[in-house]
Amino acid sequence: MTYLEQFKAYEKKLQAYQYVLNVVGWDSATEAPKGAFERRAEMQSMIAQEAFELWTSDTYLETLKALEAQDDLSEIDRKSVKKAGEALRKVNKIPADEYAAYDKLLALAQRTWEEAKANDDYDSFKETLGKIIETSKRFITYRNEDKAPYDVLLDDYEAGMSMEKYDAFFDVIRQDLVPFVQNVLNNRPEKPAFIDRHFPKAKQKEFVEYLNEVFAYDLDKGLLKESVHPFTWNTHPSDVRYTVRYLEDFLFSSIFAGIHELGHATYEMGIDEAFTETRLKGGTSMGIHESQSRFYENVIGRSYAFWTVHYDRLKSIFDEALHDVDLDTFYLGINWVEQSFIRVEADELTYPLHIMIRYECERAIFNDGIALDDLPDLWNQKVRDYLGIHVEKDTDGLLQDVHWSGGAFGYFPTYALGSAYAAQIYYAMQKELDIEAIIKADDIPQINAWLKDKIHQYGKSKTPEELLLDVTGEPFNPHYYIEYLKAKYGPLYIG
Amino acid sequence: MTYLEQFKAYEKKLQAYQYVLNVVGWDSATEAPKGAFERRAEMQSMIAQEAFELWTSDTYLETLKALEAQDDLSEIDRKSVKKAGEALRKVNKIPADEYAAYDKLLALAQRTWEEAKANDDYDSFKETLGKIIETSKRFITYRNEDKAPYDVLLDDYEAGMSMEKYDAFFDVIRQDLVPFVQNVLNNRPEKPAFIDRHFPKAKQKEFVEYLNEVFAYDLDKGLLKESVHPFTWNTHPSDVRYTVRYLEDFLFSSIFAGIHELGHATYEMGIDEAFTETRLKGGTSMGIHESQSRFYENVIGRSYAFWTVHYDRLKSIFDEALHDVDLDTFYLGINWVEQSFIRVEADELTYPLHIMIRYECERAIFNDGIALDDLPDLWNQKVRDYLGIHVEKDTDGLLQDVHWSGGAFGYFPTYALGSAYAAQIYYAMQKELDIEAIIKADDIPQINAWLKDKIHQYGKSKTPEELLLDVTGEPFNPHYYIEYLKAKYGPLYIG
Repeated sequence: MTYLEQFKAYEKKLQAYQYVLNVVGWDSATEAPKGAFERRAEMQSMIAQEAFELWTSDTYLETLKALEAQDDLSEIDRKSVKKAGEALRKVNKIPADEYAAYDKLLALAQRTWEEAKANDDYDSFKETLGKIIETSKRFITYRNEDKAPYDVLLDDYEAGMSMEKYDAFFDVIRQDLVPFVQNVLNNRPEKPAFIDRHFPKAKQKEFVEYLNEVFAYDLDKGLLKESVHPFTWNTHPSDVRYTVRYLEDFLFSSIFAGIHELGHATYEMGIDEAFTETRLKGGTSMGIHESQSRFYENVIGRSYAFWTVHYDRLKSIFDEALHDVDLDTFYLGINWVEQSFIRVEADELTYPLHIMIRYECERAIFNDGIALDDLPDLWNQKVRDYLGIHVEKDTDGLLQDVHWSGGAFGYFPTYALGSAYAAQIYYAMQKELDIEAIIKADDIPQINAWLKDKIHQYGKSKTPEELLLDVTGEPFNPHYYIEYLKAKYGPLYIG
Repeated sequence: MTYLEQFKAYEKKLQAYQYVLNVVGWDSATEAPKGAFERRAEMQSMIAQEAFELWTSDTYLETLKALEAQDDLSEIDRKSVKKAGEALRKVNKIPADEYAAYDKLLALAQRTWEEAKANDDYDSFKETLGKIIETSKRFITYRNEDKAPYDVLLDDYEAGMSMEKYDAFFDVIRQDLVPFVQNVLNNRPEKPAFIDRHFPKAKQKEFVEYLNEVFAYDLDKGLLKESVHPFTWNTHPSDVRYTVRYLEDFLFSSIFAGIHELGHATYEMGIDEAFTETRLKGGTSMGIHESQSRFYENVIGRSYAFWTVHYDRLKSIFDEALHDVDLDTFYLGINWVEQSFIRVEADELTYPLHIMIRYECERAIFNDGIALDDLPDLWNQKVRDYLGIHVEKDTDGLLQDVHWSGGAFGYFPTYALGSAYAAQIYYAMQKELDIEAIIKADDIPQINAWLKDKIHQYGKSKTPEELLLDVTGEPFNPHYYIEYLKAKYGPLYIG
C-alpha cells in the first residue's frame, strides 16, 4: 500500500467509527429510553476510545508525516492531509491521562451545570468552570502556537478569526446597532396578541411537513423528528436529518427552528460527494454553516414576501388561532423585537447583542484573566448596557447556556458572525437574483441552486475567508449586516 | 492483568461493538432514510470487520484456552468461557476469504430472493440457494463434529436438539394434530365478518399502548415503534424495544404481534444483570424465547379470559367496527382456523403444520440430498398432505420466507418447539397459579413474576433442557402441546 492508500484506509475506518457513534447520538437525542443512559454511556465511550486509539496511533501519524512531505498529491488529497494534520496536532501532544481526565471532568460538569442552573446557584458551578478553563488553557500550551490562547480558540471554531477581527465586528455592532435597537424598542406598537395563543402540536407538525416541501428537503435522504433541542444531524449527504420541538404556546419555535435546521440540512445535502470521503466533507466552518441556517430562517423565513405566499396555508391549518390575524400583524409578530434575558429566545435584531455579551465575557476570562467571582457582575453589567434590562438571577444570566460546561469557548461569536455572513451573502445574491420575486413565486429551489453552486458544493475545500471572497467579491464586511437589519426593521418600527 | 480480566475486557469491547451495530440496525429498520442504505452498508461492514478481527484475534483465543484449562473459575465465569469457546470455534476454522465470500453471497442472495419472490420465479433463486447450502455444509465440515450436518444446524439454533428429537416431535404433530385440524376445519361455523373491517391506524396504536400497560411493559427501559416486520430489539435489560405494524384492514396484526413481541421483551427485561456482562446474557435459546412470546400471544392473548377483561376497552376504541360484535364472536374471530399458504399469517392451530413442512424440506436437503429441482414438488406435496390445499405459485410456497436466503437452516423448527414449550410451561404454571383467575383479575404482573422467577432471570445460565426440567419437572414432552390445543379448539369448533 502507498502512504496515500494507507491514509485513505485509516480515514475511512475513522469515518465508520464516527458514523456508528453519530447514530447512537441520534438515537439518544430522539428516542432512546431514559433507563438506557448508563449502559449507552459505557458502550459509547469504549467505541470512542477505540476510534481515538486508531486516530492517535503511531502508524497514522507516520503516514500523515510522509504525505505532508510529498509534493505530488492532488489538490483534494493535499488539503485533506493538511486538515488531518491540523486536527491531529490539536490533541496528540496532550498526555493521554490528561485527556481522559478532561473527558471525565466534562461529563461531570454537564450535571453540575444543570443543577446549578436549576438551583440558580452559580457558586456551585464556579469551581468546575474554573477547572475547565484552566484545562483548556493548558491544552493550548501543548500546541505551541504563537498566539494568545483566546485567539487559538476563536480560530479553532472559525478558521481565520481572531480577537482583532471580532473586536472590529463587535465595535460596529456596539456603535451602530445598539442605538438602533434602542430606537426600535422606543417605537414599538402594541405586541400582537396572537403570539400567545394555543397552537396544537399535530397541526404544527403538519405545517413543518409543508415547509419540507417548500424548501425542497429530500425525504429520501432525510428525516424530520422531535427532540428537546432542535438540531441537524448528518453523516453523509445521503443521510441528513433534523429535529424540531413543538411548544403549543409558542408556534414560532417549530416554524423558525424548522426553517433554521433546514438551512443547515440543505448545506450538508449539497456538498459534492467527491469530498465526502475526505477531510473536506461537511460545511466549511461554524460561521458559514450558521450563515446558511440564518439565511433560511431570517432572510427567507421572516420576510414579508415569504408569508404573502404561505400565510394562507398557515391560516387554513390554524383557523381558530389565526382567523382574526391579518398578514401585516403576523409579519410584525414574527419580527417582534424585545429585550429578553435568554439568547435562544431572542429575536433577530437583539440576537447579536446577546452574542456580544458572551464574546466580551469570554475575552475577559481568557485574555484579561478576570476572577470567576467577578463574572456575574460583568455579565449583568453588559446586559444592562446593551439590552437595558436587569438580570435578577444567574439562571437567566451566565448560567443559561450549555456551552461553557462543555468546554466550548470561542464558539458563541460564530453565531453572530453567521448572521452577518448571511447578510453579506444576501446582497451578493441580490445582484444576480431577484430574491423577493423568487420567494413570491414559491421557487426556493432556485435559491438552493445558487447556494449550492456558490457555497454548499465546496464543503471544506474552501476556507470561510476564501468562500466569502469568491461569493461576495470582498472579505467579511459587517456593515452589510447593519444595512440589512436597518432596511428591514427601520420601516417596520420607525417608519 | 490475569487471563480472566483480559477475557472480560475483550468481552466488554465486543459487547460495545455489538451495541453500536445494534443501534445502527434499529435505526435502519425503523426510520433511516432509504437513500442512506449504501453508505450505511459500507460503514456497518467496516465496524463489523473491526469487531470480527478482535474476536478472532490470537490473543483472544489464547486467553480463552488458558481459561478453559483453569479449574478455579466461578460458575458464571466457567459457563461464560465455555459459551465463548463454542461460539468462536464455530467460525475460527473458516478461512477468512471464505467467510468474506459467504457474507457477500448472503448480501446478494437477499436481493435475488426478493426478486424471485416478487416474480414467482424459483429458478432464478435456485443457483444461489444451492451455493448457500453448499457453503453451509462446507463450513460445518471445518468444525469436525461427529454429527450429521443437519444435526449440527439444529443444535446451533436450539442446544440439545437433533433430527431424532424433532422427528419424534413432528411424529406426534403428524399423527395427533393433523387429523384434529381436519376435524376442526370440517366443523367450522361461518367466518365472523368483522375480521375484514377497517381499523384506523391511530386507534390501533392507542390500543397497543394500552397493551403496554396491561403487560406492565416498562417504558423507562423500552420503546414501541413501527416497522415493516415486527421485531423485538435489545442490547441490555435496560433497553428493550419492540415494533409492530399497523394494517388497517387487519386489526389482529398489531394486537397479536404486539403481545407476541411483548413476550420476547419481557423475557429480555427480566434477565439478572449479573449475567448481562457475560456470555450468559440474553434468552437461553430460540425455542425458549419463542415459548415466551407464544405464551403471551396465544395462551394469554388469545384466551377467552383475557378478552372478558379487555374487550370493552377495544370496543370503546373501535366503536364503529365492533359495535355489533359480541365477545363470543370476537373470541371466535381471534381463533379462526383456516387452511392458508402463508406461515406468518397462519392461526395458532395450523401454525405447527407450516413448520413441519419446512422441517421436512430442510431435512431432505441436508440429510437426504434432494435435488433443488425437486424441492417445489416436495414442498407442495406436503402442503397438500398437511393442510389439504394446492400451492398455485412458489411465491406462496417455498419462496415465501426470508430464512433460507439468509442461510438460516435449522431455525424454523424452533418456532413450533417454542409453542410446544409454552404449552408444557402452561401446565406447570397451572399447578401453582390459577391462570384464568389471574388474567380475569387483570394481574399479568403476577404471571410475569412467575416467569421471571422460573425462566427469565436465568438468561443463558441454564440450557433449554435444564430450564424445562427445572420449570416443569420433566424433559420436553410434545403431548402437552396437543392436549392444550385440543382443550382449546375442541370446545370452540367441535363441541
